[in-house]
Formats: sequence, C-alpha cells, structure tokens
Amino acid sequence: MIIVMRHGASEENIQKVVDFIRKKGREAHISKGESHVVIGAVGETVIDPRDFELLDNVKEVIKISSSYKLVSRIFKNEDTIIEVNGEKFGGDYVGMIAGPCTIENEDQINECARLMAEAGVKIIRGGAYKPRTSPYAFQGLGEEGLKMIRRAADKYNLAVTSEVMEISQIPQFLRYVDILQVGARNMQNFNLLKELSKVDKPVMLKRGLSATINEWLMAAEYILSGGNREVILCERGIRTFEVATRNTLDLCAIPVVKKLSHLPIIVDPSHGTGLRDKVAPMSLASVAAGCDGLMIEVHNKPECALCDGAQSLYPEQFSELYQKLKKLAPVVDKIM
Amino acid sequence: MIIVMRHGASEENIQKVVDFIRKKGREAHISKGESHVVIGAVGETVIDPRDFELLDNVKEVIKISSSYKLVSRIFKNEDTIIEVNGEKFGGDYVGMIAGPCTIENEDQINECARLMAEAGVKIIRGGAYKPRTSPYAFQGLGEEGLKMIRRAADKYNLAVTSEVMEISQIPQFLRYVDILQVGARNMQNFNLLKELSKVDKPVMLKRGLSATINEWLMAAEYILSGGNREVILCERGIRTFEVATRNTLDLCAIPVVKKLSHLPIIVDPSHGTGLRDKVAPMSLASVAAGCDGLMIEVHNKPECALCDGAQSLYPEQFSELYQKLKKLAPVVDKIM
Amino acid sequence: MIIVMRHGASEENIQKVVDFIRKKGREAHISKGESHVVIGAVGETVIDPRDFELLDNVKEVIKISSSYKLVSRIFKNEDTIIEVNGEKFGGDYVGMIAGPCTIENEDQINECARLMAEAGVKIIRGGAYKPRTSPYAFQGLGEEGLKMIRRAADKYNLAVTSEVMEISQIPQFLRYVDILQVGARNMQNFNLLKELSKVDKPVMLKRGLSATINEWLMAAEYILSGGNREVILCERGIRTFEVATRNTLDLCAIPVVKKLSHLPIIVDPSHGTGLRDKVAPMSLASVAAGCDGLMIEVHNKPECALCDGAQSLYPEQFSELYQKLKKLAPVVDKIM
Amino acid sequence: MIIVMRHGASEENIQKVVDFIRKKGREAHISKGESHVVIGAVGETVIDPRDFELLDNVKEVIKISSSYKLVSRIFKNEDTIIEVNGEKFGGDYVGMIAGPCTIENEDQINECARLMAEAGVKIIRGGAYKPRTSPYAFQGLGEEGLKMIRRAADKYNLAVTSEVMEISQIPQFLRYVDILQVGARNMQNFNLLKELSKVDKPVMLKRGLSATINEWLMAAEYILSGGNREVILCERGIRTFEVATRNTLDLCAIPVVKKLSHLPIIVDPSHGTGLRDKVAPMSLASVAAGCDGLMIEVHNKPECALCDGAQSLYPEQFSELYQKLKKLAPVVDKIM
Repeated sequence: MIIVMRHGASEENIQKVVDFIRKKGREAHISKGESHVVIGAVGETVIDPRDFELLDNVKEVIKISSSYKLVSRIFKNEDTIIEVNGEKFGGDYVGMIAGPCTIENEDQINECARLMAEAGVKIIRGGAYKPRTSPYAFQGLGEEGLKMIRRAADKYNLAVTSEVMEISQIPQFLRYVDILQVGARNMQNFNLLKELSKVDKPVMLKRGLSATINEWLMAAEYILSGGNREVILCERGIRTFEVATRNTLDLCAIPVVKKLSHLPIIVDPSHGTGLRDKVAPMSLASVAAGCDGLMIEVHNKPECALCDGAQSLYPEQFSELYQKLKKLAPVVDKIM
Repeated sequence: MIIVMRHGASEENIQKVVDFIRKKGREAHISKGESHVVIGAVGETVIDPRDFELLDNVKEVIKISSSYKLVSRIFKNEDTIIEVNGEKFGGDYVGMIAGPCTIENEDQINECARLMAEAGVKIIRGGAYKPRTSPYAFQGLGEEGLKMIRRAADKYNLAVTSEVMEISQIPQFLRYVDILQVGARNMQNFNLLKELSKVDKPVMLKRGLSATINEWLMAAEYILSGGNREVILCERGIRTFEVATRNTLDLCAIPVVKKLSHLPIIVDPSHGTGLRDKVAPMSLASVAAGCDGLMIEVHNKPECALCDGAQSLYPEQFSELYQKLKKLAPVVDKIM
Repeated sequence: MIIVMRHGASEENIQKVVDFIRKKGREAHISKGESHVVIGAVGETVIDPRDFELLDNVKEVIKISSSYKLVSRIFKNEDTIIEVNGEKFGGDYVGMIAGPCTIENEDQINECARLMAEAGVKIIRGGAYKPRTSPYAFQGLGEEGLKMIRRAADKYNLAVTSEVMEISQIPQFLRYVDILQVGARNMQNFNLLKELSKVDKPVMLKRGLSATINEWLMAAEYILSGGNREVILCERGIRTFEVATRNTLDLCAIPVVKKLSHLPIIVDPSHGTGLRDKVAPMSLASVAAGCDGLMIEVHNKPECALCDGAQSLYPEQFSELYQKLKKLAPVVDKIM
Repeated sequence: MIIVMRHGASEENIQKVVDFIRKKGREAHISKGESHVVIGAVGETVIDPRDFELLDNVKEVIKISSSYKLVSRIFKNEDTIIEVNGEKFGGDYVGMIAGPCTIENEDQINECARLMAEAGVKIIRGGAYKPRTSPYAFQGLGEEGLKMIRRAADKYNLAVTSEVMEISQIPQFLRYVDILQVGARNMQNFNLLKELSKVDKPVMLKRGLSATINEWLMAAEYILSGGNREVILCERGIRTFEVATRNTLDLCAIPVVKKLSHLPIIVDPSHGTGLRDKVAPMSLASVAAGCDGLMIEVHNKPECALCDGAQSLYPEQFSELYQKLKKLAPVVDKIM
C-alpha cells in the first residue's frame, strides 16, 4: 500500500501515518518527492486503505497488491484449456454450448437435444432451478428436470450444463450434470462458491450484473482456492443506464480478462442482449474479440417457451449462425 | 399488457398479434387511435413482452401489472410498524440499530454493547459471518460470534441483528438473533429468501448493489409470500460510475418506497458511503427524507477494527449524532 | 399516450384524467379491461407523462410516439450511404478513418498522412481543437492545425475529419475539413447541432458518455431537421461502473441502431477502450457485429504523442489489423 | 505519478520505465519494497499514465497530483460565500432560488415573481433558452423571455438566474441576469466555460449527468482559472440504472465537495427527482446533509406549465416547505 501525503503535510502528519503502519504490523518506507511525500506500507497484514484517508493531510491511498493469486497469469502463464465431451474452451479453442433456457418436459428437452446434436453441438444447456425475480413465476422442474435432461443428453451423446442455486442441490448436480453453472445473482454467494471449490467437475461462473472484472476474478479465486482449478468465466452483460437492451454486453471484458487470467472466458449473448435478433451479431462479435466459447439459447419452438422465448433462436437460425461462426474463427486464429 | 402497433401496421400484422395473445390464453382488445392501433392483452397468464417485440410492426409493448402484491400499498394501505425490544420502525417511528461491523472477540463486543446501551440504543448489530470479496480475508467467527453477541446483548438488555448468509445457518440465527439480516449480495438469493419466509422473526432485506426498487420489492415479496410479514427494507447505496464514495446512497428511494409499499425502510449510511466523516451528514439527510430507521456502525476502537473500521464512528461521535437526529426528527413529524 | 388506472380507481378518478386530457387539447379513448381501465390520449399536442402520474389512482403512463422522425427507418427504409473521397459508410460498406488523436506539428501530421495513404486509408483524422478535462492541458493548435492537416491530406489525396467544438469555428471547418465531427461532450450542445444542420458537409455525431440510444438519435434528428441529411453516428463507449477500461464499448448499439434508423453507425475503439492492446479485438468485434465503419487512432510515434498516445496504434499494428478486418468483413456480408 | 512494477519484473523492465520517465522530462525515484518495486516520476511535465501500463511488467500506475488548484481547499481554506441581492450561499448560509422552469409569457412570470417575493424568496429562476432533447419541443422565448423576467424581477426586487447555452448569448445575459447558469449538458462545453471565466457575475455550474465529482471540479477550475472566482456548484442528479426517478440525486456529493473545495454547493431537487412529491423530502434531506442552497421549481399553475410542470411545486406547497426548511437549518448549524 502507498500513502501519498498532501503538499504541505507536516512532519507530525507523516509520523502519524508511519506509526499507524507499524501498529498494523507493516514496515514504512518514506520517499520525499518534490511536491509530495510518499510512504510505502510494506508487508502482508491486512490494512483498510480508508483508515489512512481519514488521517490529516493524507492525499490519497493506493492498494497495490491484487487480491487474486491462483486465477492470475502471474501464477500460471499458459491458458487453461477445459475439455468436456470433446469440446474445448480456452487456448486456441472456441467451444459451444446451446439449448433451451428451461427444461419444460420430456418431449421438449428430447427434441432440443436431438436438434442440438444434429447441429453438431456437444454440450446442451437447460435450467432445472430458475432464479426468477417474481415468486409467482415458474421456478423450474427441479430434480425431475435434471433427470430429463440427463436422459435426453445420453441418448444423443451430449454433455449437460445447468444452473445450481443452492448448496443442498450440489449432490444432485454431481449425479446428472457435467458443468455446474453459477448464475449472475449468485456470483458473490460465497458459501456456494466455497462448496463448489471442492467439486471435481468444471464450474461456469457468470459475471454479476454489477460486478467489476476484479470482483469476478476474486469470485473465481474462491473456487480455485478450495482446489477446483476448472473454472469457465461467462460474460453475460452488465447493468447500465441504457434501456434499449436488457443488459449491456461488455465485450471488452474478453481481452481484459485474457490479459489478467489464464482461465477461459465465454459469452452468453442471449442473456446479454435479451432479444433474438441481437444474438447473431453479438455472437459473431464475441468470437471476433477472442472469446473461448459461447453459450446460446435455442428452443425447438421459441414462441411456446415457458421462459425467455424472446431471446431463444429457432433451430435453423442457430445452425446458420454456427456455420458463420466456424468461418469467422480462423480469421482471428481460433479453432471452432 | 398493451401492445402498440407501428404507424402503418397492416391488418395482417395486427391479426398476428391478436392470434398470439389468444394462443397464450388471454383476451385481445383492439382500440384504433389516430396514428396507432393499440391492443390490450387481458388476463392472468404469463406472457413475456419481448415475444411481441419480435413480431412485425410492433412498436412497443408495455407491462401494466406490477408483479408484487403483498408488499404493495394497494394490498395494505396502513404502514407496517415493526417493533423489536421496544424499538419501532415504520409509521411515525424512526428506529435505531448500532454496533460494530464484525464481532471480533468477547471483550470487544461486550464493550460495544455497554457503550450502545449507554447511548440509549436498544438493538445492537454485529457480523458473525462476513461476505468478503477475497477468500483470504477474515470470514467471521461464525456460531461462536453469535453466542458472544447474544451474551453481551443479554447483559445490557439489547436485541441483536446479524447477517445470515446461508440456509443451513438459519437454525443458529433463530437461537441467538432477533432480526435476521440479508446482505446486498444475497438480495436475489431466492432459496434463502424462501426459507426466511417461513421464519417468525423480522427480516431486514438490504438492497442489492444494482437492484432496481422494483426488484427489491419483488425480493421482499418472496419473504411475504411464504407467510413472514415482518420485513424491514434497508437502503445501503447503489453502484454507479462515481468513485469518490464506495457507493451512491439513493435517498430518494425513501419517498419512492413509502409511496409504493407499506413496509418500513431504513438506511445504512456506513456502507452507503464507506467513510466515517460522511456518516453523520447522510444520517441526518436520511431522517429528513422520511426514513423509518437507521443502522450505523460504531466501534469502541475504530482504528483497531478488523473490518471496515474506516466507516465506523467513535462512540462519542455516535452519541452526538444520535442527539442531533432526535432534535431533527420532530421537524419532519417523526418520533425518534 | 396511454394512461393505465390502478385496480379500484373510481369513476371520479377516471373522469379527472379524461378532463385533463381534453384540457390539453387531445381526445380521450377509454377501454375497460378486467383489472385495469386504460385511457388513450390521442392527438399531437405536447403532454408531459408525469402530469398524469401525479393524479389519483393513476398506475402508469406510457408515451407511445417516438420523438424522432427523419432519422427513423419508418421515414426512410433504405440505408443511407455516405461517400467521402471514395470511401463509403452504410449499406454493405464498412469505411475506415484513421490518424492521430491530435495535430501536433507539420512533420508529424505529414508523416501520419503518408503512412495512412500507404496503408490504403482515404480519410485522415486529427484534432485541432481538443476538449480537455483540465484547463491546464494542451488545447490544440486551432486553425493552424486545420491548415496543416489540409495541406498534408491534399499531398496524399486524403479527406479530413476533425472535431468542431463551437459555432464560431464552423466557417474554418468548412474551408479545411470534409467531415465535421461532434464530440461526445457536445452531443447535446443543441445550438451547435442546429448550426450544423445548415451545413452541406457530413457530420459525424459521437454518442454522449451517458446518452441513451434514443437521446443519440434525437440529437441526430436536430441535424436532419435543419436540412443536413448526412449524419454518421459514432459509438465510442459509455460510462459504467467498470474501471478496467476507460469506457464500456456498447457494441450491441450497432444492431439496435440499424433496426431503428437508416443512418450509418461506425465505432471508435480507441476512445471506447482507451488502451492500444484492446483496439484490435474491439475493431474486429465491431465489424463482426455489423458496423458501417471504424475510426482508429494511429500515430507515427505513439510514445511521443502529445495526447492519448496510449490508445494509438503503431503504423504496422494498424496495417496488420486493416488486413485482418478486410478478411473478416465478407464473412458477415460486408465490403471493406 | 507512481509506477508499481509487477512482482518478478526484471532489471531491464525497470530500466525501460526509468528511461521513459526521463524522456518525458521528469526525474525517476526508485524504491524497492519486499514484493514490488515502486518508481516515482517527479516533475511537472504532462504524462499519460496509460503509456506506462503498456510497458512490460508494469502492474499499476497512479496519478497523484489532482489537476484542480484554484477550486481546492488547499489553495483557499475558507469557504467562499457568494451574495446576490442579499441572499448568501456558502459558509453557514443556505440560500434559496425558486421560480418556474420556463418563462412562458408576461403574465405568468409576473405572477410567479409576485408569489416568490411574497414567500420571501430573493432570487427568481426561469428559463429563456431551453435545452430540449427533441428539436420539435418548445425551445424557449429567447431574449424576449429574458426581458420579461427582468421586468418582473425588478418590480418585486428580485435577482434573476437563467441558463445560458451559447457564447453569443452572454452579452444578453449580462444585461438581464444576475447569476448565469450552465446546464448539465454543457458542463464540459469548455469554450462556453472559458468565456464565462471572463464575466464578472456569478456562474452556477450544474453537474453533468455522468460527471464524476472530480470532472465537475475541473469544469469549475476552467471558470476560476480565467479570473471569475464566483462559482456556485449545483448537484442535480446523476444517471444510473434506476428508473423509478428521472435521475439519482447524489446527496453525498455535498460533504464530499465541501471537503475538497471552498466553493458553495447547492441542490436542485426538482430536476434531481423529476416528480413534485419527491421535491420536499429531497429538499429537507439536502439541507440536513449540509448544502449551501437550494433551487426549486415553483409554478403559479403547474398543471398548465409548458415544461416540467410535473416537477413544479404549487405556491402553497413551496411556502410550507420553505418554513420547514427554516426550522430544520439551525439543527445542522446553518442559517436560512
């Protein structure tokens, strides 16, 4: 931590800062510049920067150690590549996950699985537990849904990803699901993250609606710090003042994350935009920006979907888009 | 729901909307204006407005039924007043909760309880489970902490509020705590909310960092819909582009919520600003704006606090502020 | 405008709304649904929706006529294509503008012009008047700078774009510049927009830092309504809570704008990200998302640039990127 | 400026930073901590921090000199008190400005002036030039309006404040107006600010919709740096994701600004909330938070107002509020 004193700070002011640093168990290094005295607080003990801001004539306090370690490129320089059912995410690879928002019934999920397999998809998505803003909205089929998607997936040689909302659901998910998804609203549900850190299946961690990239990487650190090294980050839009789209997809998060971390980052353009006709342009843009995968909502009959039908692609739209993406990937030196 | 057609929409376009409404189990009412045809979709079945937006020549779709019922002033017009240990929140009353951010040890929490009682406070706060951005930061004393704060509170005739983070912790909280607090990061942890809806103690629901007031009231609806009618809403700042303060305290949420809902709304100026010298002005402003209570962090030795010391008041500062607040309340026709 | 009454609104409440509508010179159409009475206010006179919100038992008020006309696809369905010096923006075309942030001196702008021409660029950018946050920062060379860039451009057969900040500068710009750029901070400088509406050269209108897409199109409407039909919209990032990048580039604005308006939309990834190593991925993403052009900062010696060197590409980086973009464009059916 | 090297940065990496600092005309001070090398770049020449971020193994770059000088409390410690027509803003004083949004005609402004004088107000507001999102909305009466408000003000011994939008309007304003108001959309119209820095009347500078407090103070610095020391800052709400109110009033800006600057800060709760019934609670909250003044919209017949009637108070509402504010001010040691 670095404490910058105001121009004109007295010796007494400076001494007070130094004393405080020592009291907190760190060493103080003073360096006098032309207009400002700068004091370094070296050591590992925890200090809250705001404690210094309240001392007299302290101009600014700067934290310099980032709090994430295991997710950082400094800790591990080579890209982490996560492979599920032959589909790869990370490094040169762009993986694909597709399927309906919600598991509705045996027929629907079966039909979706068939269509996805036909389109060349290897991992199907589908929600069994749904985080709904309203307590009166459809909350998902629960374990029954997980069983349905597992059966459908097995029939068509697909892997499964689905959202886990609660610690007590984890054992079920380990039985039926290949990638455990953490939703945006749970990105900082730290108890859930800690439990998932002990699981030996990949976790897909969605970015919170108002999470900074730093907080997102810290949430991933929770999972890695418990022993699970397979985390896929998923950008799904952030909340801004703009109302034309459901969320603002922050595609620049892709190069930012790839510089800071070795973990793969994928994009969910369906939730990121909330409207079917924006999914194709944003999918193409994501791959062009260098993402490591996509998760796209597709429904056999979007107009009949129980949830988020408006952002689901028709199967033919999806197939056409997938072909286009495969043509685009090599232009940016990626394999899809 | 109301669907507004674009100027120039054809009969066929209109018919498609009408057909869709009927397919979804609602009645369609057409009314032709000078420049726009407007179609009402009357009924109770769930429809996603975006489904219409994707139809040809639909200009705009408007949802008209708010999704919350039990929290609404339409459902219950009189203010809900929640009383804990003689302290009232709601109606004409402004209640006070104060205490340290975190329970650190027996001595600290005892000393805090003594100081709070001395200052006239009837409800003490203190965290036993801490939601920390970093997995390497102090995570709280857990059940031991809850026992400590209960003993200290009993000694000084105080009630206790503390944050519950996980369903499995609820039984402990019912043993030791009088108001169960849900943190900002868990505002949309719907499984937790559902469990708390079955509890017969008051729940304090903090506003999420990027939650709209509508989403916040919907989260409260989760708790009321399960049978628990004692919810205290707590504004604690939202996330904006401004970096001068930790969060932007949205004080206008007070009159907005009081118009829409009968539930009491309190303010946490400590987390809302993140800096000790901003707590007093924002506390005064909150009461002037008509809030039903305050929750303020006070520490016996802020400079030694394990967590958030920078936003904790010194005991004397708190006492002085409390006196000022009591003088201010009657100016806005409130009792404190 | 549509006024939705609350469930339980009295006849008197309804009559009051109807009276108000008539008083304001519009016709009132009442339609009674199962749970809500809905009143349409038909006509062209101006009404502020909030006036109704304050009447008793009014639940919601909805504006249905968008305020822009000339920029809308309803007014003109075919894409507007703007051609400057043989470079086309709009329709199937992706145009390119490149050059330094600021005109620094004769040598620098000359060298930049030479490099741009060599790379195949037909329009050079360069600032002569700079909107700087600090009054003590370099404010640009003014008219001298405009003369320099004109001379350099003429030598290499380039067109010129530069930012105009003030009405009194317009005559100068008409002498030296081919596209007049309006900066983000001036997007709602309505007096400037009105003057530019009378000019017979294209105007590039940058999106304001916190402007909604609707406000941006309304600002364009100011220019079109005065007679100038050649407006190029430029997305350059919006202000959000995220601090990892200077701004958050809102690439979904591309398909949103293209659906609502016939005007071309280009992207400025240099200001949109603020960092050189993010410019290439965001340029590729923009073209993949369907933009009609790019404006990229390139400097002959970025490390010596007087302003924004950190977001300027090296000439070789730019050439490499331009080649990649040309390979990518046909994948999304665009010509570059 | 301080450059923090990454853990593990090589001597070569460090040397490259040092060389760059010297090339830019500053001195480099190296100090080696346990885990990080920190390099200070001492001197006054301009450096863009991002230039360093792009060098190898640079972890972070921190700017330490704030760019505003004349507006800062370091430059001038005592509060600036601005007095107009006997009304004081700053120090212990809370001044009041009230009146209609827009000057509509002789009768309306006359009646408003009479009512304001009757209520004890000494400064009337009223717009003659209106910044409207739509080119088709009423744009104000222009100079005729200024003449009307001057005549009305003179009749009732009032001073006048009105918004100036353009440099060419300044001479008119100097003739008719006592405080020149700069609107939120023009906060960074630097050419306008520079002209106003030469004027010898007070300038009221509204905060931009997405302006940080730092940018706002920098905009004030433009005015002070040209010689005009009479600037009143006006908080009027910032743009956030919340849609329940027109803007989010950032009342914590009051104590933040008062710590950083000696300039008076007032609040406009009418634009800050956009709804009449939120104006009273937010006015009371502003004074409780320590503001130096208020600007409130009042209209003789709000339901007939040409613009923003929904946020205008009725004259009786205003009088009642003003009395309450006068009772509240002494509680927070202010004079009103």
